[in-house]
Amino acid sequence: MYFFDNDYMIGAHPEVMEQLVATNSLHTVGYGRDEFTQKAKELILKKCGLREGDVYFLEGGTQSNLVVIDRILDYNDGVIAADTAHINVHEAGAIEACGHKIIALPNKDGKLTHQAIKEYVMSYLNDDTCHYMVRPAMVYISFPTELGTIYSLKELKRIREVCDEFHLPLYIDGARLAYGLASRKNDVTLNDIASSADVFYIGGTKCGALFGEAVVTRRPELLPRFVSLIKLRGATLAKGRLLGVQFLSLFSNSLYERIGKHAVDMAMLLKEGFMKKGYPLFIDSPSNQQFFILPNDKIESLKKIASFELWGPKGETSTPVRFVTDWSTVEDEVRALIKAL
Amino acid sequence: MYFFDNDYMIGAHPEVMEQLVATNSLHTVGYGRDEFTQKAKELILKKCGLREGDVYFLEGGTQSNLVVIDRILDYNDGVIAADTAHINVHEAGAIEACGHKIIALPNKDGKLTHQAIKEYVMSYLNDDTCHYMVRPAMVYISFPTELGTIYSLKELKRIREVCDEFHLPLYIDGARLAYGLASRKNDVTLNDIASSADVFYIGGTKCGALFGEAVVTRRPELLPRFVSLIKLRGATLAKGRLLGVQFLSLFSNSLYERIGKHAVDMAMLLKEGFMKKGYPLFIDSPSNQQFFILPNDKIESLKKIASFELWGPKGETSTPVRFVTDWSTVEDEVRALIKAL
Amino acid sequence: MYFFDNDYMIGAHPEVMEQLVATNSLHTVGYGRDEFTQKAKELILKKCGLREGDVYFLEGGTQSNLVVIDRILDYNDGVIAADTAHINVHEAGAIEACGHKIIALPNKDGKLTHQAIKEYVMSYLNDDTCHYMVRPAMVYISFPTELGTIYSLKELKRIREVCDEFHLPLYIDGARLAYGLASRKNDVTLNDIASSADVFYIGGTKCGALFGEAVVTRRPELLPRFVSLIKLRGATLAKGRLLGVQFLSLFSNSLYERIGKHAVDMAMLLKEGFMKKGYPLFIDSPSNQQFFILPNDKIESLKKIASFELWGPKGETSTPVRFVTDWSTVEDEVRALIKAL
Amino acid sequence: MYFFDNDYMIGAHPEVMEQLVATNSLHTVGYGRDEFTQKAKELILKKCGLREGDVYFLEGGTQSNLVVIDRILDYNDGVIAADTAHINVHEAGAIEACGHKIIALPNKDGKLTHQAIKEYVMSYLNDDTCHYMVRPAMVYISFPTELGTIYSLKELKRIREVCDEFHLPLYIDGARLAYGLASRKNDVTLNDIASSADVFYIGGTKCGALFGEAVVTRRPELLPRFVSLIKLRGATLAKGRLLGVQFLSLFSNSLYERIGKHAVDMAMLLKEGFMKKGYPLFIDSPSNQQFFILPNDKIESLKKIASFELWGPKGETSTPVRFVTDWSTVEDEVRALIKAL
Repeated sequence: MYFFDNDYMIGAHPEVMEQLVATNSLHTVGYGRDEFTQKAKELILKKCGLREGDVYFLEGGTQSNLVVIDRILDYNDGVIAADTAHINVHEAGAIEACGHKIIALPNKDGKLTHQAIKEYVMSYLNDDTCHYMVRPAMVYISFPTELGTIYSLKELKRIREVCDEFHLPLYIDGARLAYGLASRKNDVTLNDIASSADVFYIGGTKCGALFGEAVVTRRPELLPRFVSLIKLRGATLAKGRLLGVQFLSLFSNSLYERIGKHAVDMAMLLKEGFMKKGYPLFIDSPSNQQFFILPNDKIESLKKIASFELWGPKGETSTPVRFVTDWSTVEDEVRALIKAL
Repeated sequence: MYFFDNDYMIGAHPEVMEQLVATNSLHTVGYGRDEFTQKAKELILKKCGLREGDVYFLEGGTQSNLVVIDRILDYNDGVIAADTAHINVHEAGAIEACGHKIIALPNKDGKLTHQAIKEYVMSYLNDDTCHYMVRPAMVYISFPTELGTIYSLKELKRIREVCDEFHLPLYIDGARLAYGLASRKNDVTLNDIASSADVFYIGGTKCGALFGEAVVTRRPELLPRFVSLIKLRGATLAKGRLLGVQFLSLFSNSLYERIGKHAVDMAMLLKEGFMKKGYPLFIDSPSNQQFFILPNDKIESLKKIASFELWGPKGETSTPVRFVTDWSTVEDEVRALIKAL
Repeated sequence: MYFFDNDYMIGAHPEVMEQLVATNSLHTVGYGRDEFTQKAKELILKKCGLREGDVYFLEGGTQSNLVVIDRILDYNDGVIAADTAHINVHEAGAIEACGHKIIALPNKDGKLTHQAIKEYVMSYLNDDTCHYMVRPAMVYISFPTELGTIYSLKELKRIREVCDEFHLPLYIDGARLAYGLASRKNDVTLNDIASSADVFYIGGTKCGALFGEAVVTRRPELLPRFVSLIKLRGATLAKGRLLGVQFLSLFSNSLYERIGKHAVDMAMLLKEGFMKKGYPLFIDSPSNQQFFILPNDKIESLKKIASFELWGPKGETSTPVRFVTDWSTVEDEVRALIKAL
Repeated sequence: MYFFDNDYMIGAHPEVMEQLVATNSLHTVGYGRDEFTQKAKELILKKCGLREGDVYFLEGGTQSNLVVIDRILDYNDGVIAADTAHINVHEAGAIEACGHKIIALPNKDGKLTHQAIKEYVMSYLNDDTCHYMVRPAMVYISFPTELGTIYSLKELKRIREVCDEFHLPLYIDGARLAYGLASRKNDVTLNDIASSADVFYIGGTKCGALFGEAVVTRRPELLPRFVSLIKLRGATLAKGRLLGVQFLSLFSNSLYERIGKHAVDMAMLLKEGFMKKGYPLFIDSPSNQQFFILPNDKIESLKKIASFELWGPKGETSTPVRFVTDWSTVEDEVRALIKAL
């Protein structure tokens, strides 16, 4: 069976696992005050081109999103996001459970547009009753998006400009950042992300780690007493170095880049194969998630050799499907799958 | 100056005020355990045609909405509402502050449709990842809506059917209930409201009281330990009888009906006047809020004799406006206003 | 029957009621943006000796406590209070429902001591793990306390000094402020309260109003965007002027002082009477709440002519009781009660 | 340097790590729906002597505590705990951040007593104003406690009886369960824990895992829709099998018991050594945490060869200290330390 369900079906990349094993019997202080974590933070800031800033390691994406957003928003504040955003659809109401509204705006290919943000904020500001409305107080985007699409540098800069105009912190969810950066259509660097976002996170869980995300900010003042808030949300890892060790490994020897590149290469191979066979794209994604529309009987037959997800309810004759690649995707298996189309 | 800004610019209806004065120097137990409150509860249940049920008096609409919704929803539950709903737009994020998402669906003339509810719930139930999504767990509508429109009995019954099908409690916000019931186009009775809704509230603040709303339910088990939750939200009135006395008055001698009828009569007179002069309706409202589109220079000149609200940002040449009537609207003033059009 | 259960059994003081009636048929803008509210704010600031500051009118005590404390505390912050404090015992968990711990310290006659505050904060600061503890971030006291006792000016100043030392905002719950100020043992003025507290509230509900409290701060920056938070908690009164009108009345013609003095005079008369008859005090209260220990059979016989509360569970032979006076307490009734002892 | 700071300074027990490595390259479904997790759940239920029940794997102790307590408590409910309880002192206000009060009662050697619980609940029930108080609605204890002490079977049964009498779910925090069960003074079995507690968790993080806790309940109806709540709190692990694999390993070949026994053996050796040298116990702990009172100069000299924590602020001449053992504690190092005393 070939596995294309998602990018968290397998353990850590062998290089990451190796480091976890190598450091397993060392004694260090807990709660991320160890040397590995310290080194990982410094390394990440360096790779991001940030001379100053803070890095916090957390265990998962929803957790990272909720502690960051909860920390930045004041009472009565909301976060602007695309209606398709992970926080709006697939986090079980985690942001609302912290007391905040998600101001969901229509997406364009899974992306939020600077126009939509601006229009919304303007209409809020021009409303006489705005003090009885939820204040739009930060912007959430993900890179890549839920649909695998990515923002161009130009799009990112325009969003940044709107954020500057209205003093809105910009937060970027980088659960699959490796695959966005490695996309062949991408013109955004890690430095661009780090300098555009006020806060963002570098995904580990879906990009080669056992688990873990690195929340990075160039503006530490946005996350005051963050260590206490992380604890209060039950998000503090006792053996915090596990996260430091993994990220140290991911950002050594270009591993994060290699993981991204391999997965995207495999995804492009897959896409090419499906397209050649005449299957239409559900959306044109340049990263490690590929979406096709397949006839239902083809889905049936493919399911015998590969696992993958239906993307929405089954249609009458055909259905959108999603294939996801990661560091472990094997080229021969991709080719075999294509052959079987 | 003639006042048409809203329906809470003046004190209580004289008959209500009279009772407050008459009972002012009596001693009663606090927190709504007095006889006036008890009698008002019984009277309201009777008027609603409910043999069994509970009534809770609260101080305002947002407060009523938040305690009811907070009480009914479990963790991870959301409330379905029209995108134009008061809870979604003008309550400063009160529902989210209690931890719950508002699932905002597109409105039709300010109303939620049974189709929209059904479609959304079906798509939720058919989603394999629904346990990581917010569960649609109750339905909120208002009668009349923010735009003055009202549900027909048929529409209400269809919504009820969808709620039954998916076991969703239906909550009706009756901030302006008097004006909906008194509408000439209305075919819904107070009994229909009381038997369709699982919980609803009868608006006092905007319908002749100094302040106060009566939350009514035919299913007391939906609001367990509600007295404690009301206290926890700071919504308990020490001199609770003030609410009982007012509602006793509102529901005696058909006062609530008279208030509704007078305001609607004045609203219809106003509407007729504007239409005769050729001003288009912004929306065709059958209740005490009337919306017209007026040329900006006409707005300027009218502002000299009457106060009313612009409904949205000023347009280039014309702008929607809102005129609201209540128990205190004087027929001669309405006629004078129409003359001045 | 003579009523001594509490100070919210009767309506508003006649002078207050008179103003509510006199203004009932006026049209004003809503939500407290009217002239009465504006004038009341200015008058209160003046009476408090504050040149600058803000006043917000709210509907009740628990509501005032929760919005103020919720506004001042950051995530992970707690409020220091006496274990007997109203917020710790009788508000149904309102503060915790906003996400905050009450750090309850042992009381002395219902009062918090500056030593207890200092010791606690020092132990927190000296704890290496304090970033995983709740941060003591503000101090709550009430004047008078739940037991009717009052802080001397010296005690108040010492608490202020500790607050200054550790940068803790001091919040004073003045639900029964009139009676504390009017106490014969009191050496604290309204100006002292206003200049010692960062935020405090002047109780209306228990001191002659129908309902309402005036939150006062000399440091408006402590309550940013407070109007939105008040709305979000459902605490905004549509006909906001009702609060303005009442407080304007309470602070005109020394009404608030007269109300306080009368109730305290009656309380002292009562106390003297009980003491002369040899009934021991449960606690020596100098304000409008008086606590005695009465034999159970005496309680039985008194209950025939007067209503009052047992203060705790019934003892074997005797039980603490509470008698409360207010503006409406009649001297002849007090004397008749004493005679009946 | 010999390490006795705490029980989370080193990685996983080699047998656990081995399994993580062995399963690293397998593909499984995510979010804990894999076979390893399923098998681990079945194994744990079996070891607990539960024919029916549920097991949920979480990442850490504070996280487990907050999701369980948040799930069980209704609005306005509080959890009874010892004042020294981890949730009351060292979780940064996590329970309050979920909206709930911790009703902290005086501890006895770190333990809650059945008398204290009963007295508190009785006083609540006998209070006429109890509907305006926080309702005591569940009981939290830990086994062992923060001070290393353990409940005897008799004590546990008495607490269970009080819980039964007042319908209070009992929750046991077993962060260090292995060491409590392995204590030489212990007469409580895992089966006793599982049948006494309504919900409890088996600590992994401090007992040999990389991270992870197993929440176990014999009453699944107490945790309805728990999977959604876990997600909402950001506590869902994408590669959920990591927890299943670890607990499968911990509960195979008596590893959990062996870990407990070794650590307790080392702790007893340590205790004996300190006592022989005449150093007084701070508290008599029978588990893996040992507390002594050491002269400050002795602390200085010991710090050169061993790391351990001061237990509270430094005293004038002597200070309480804590030494903690775990699976990795080396007997020779303990003996060398004792020699150096």
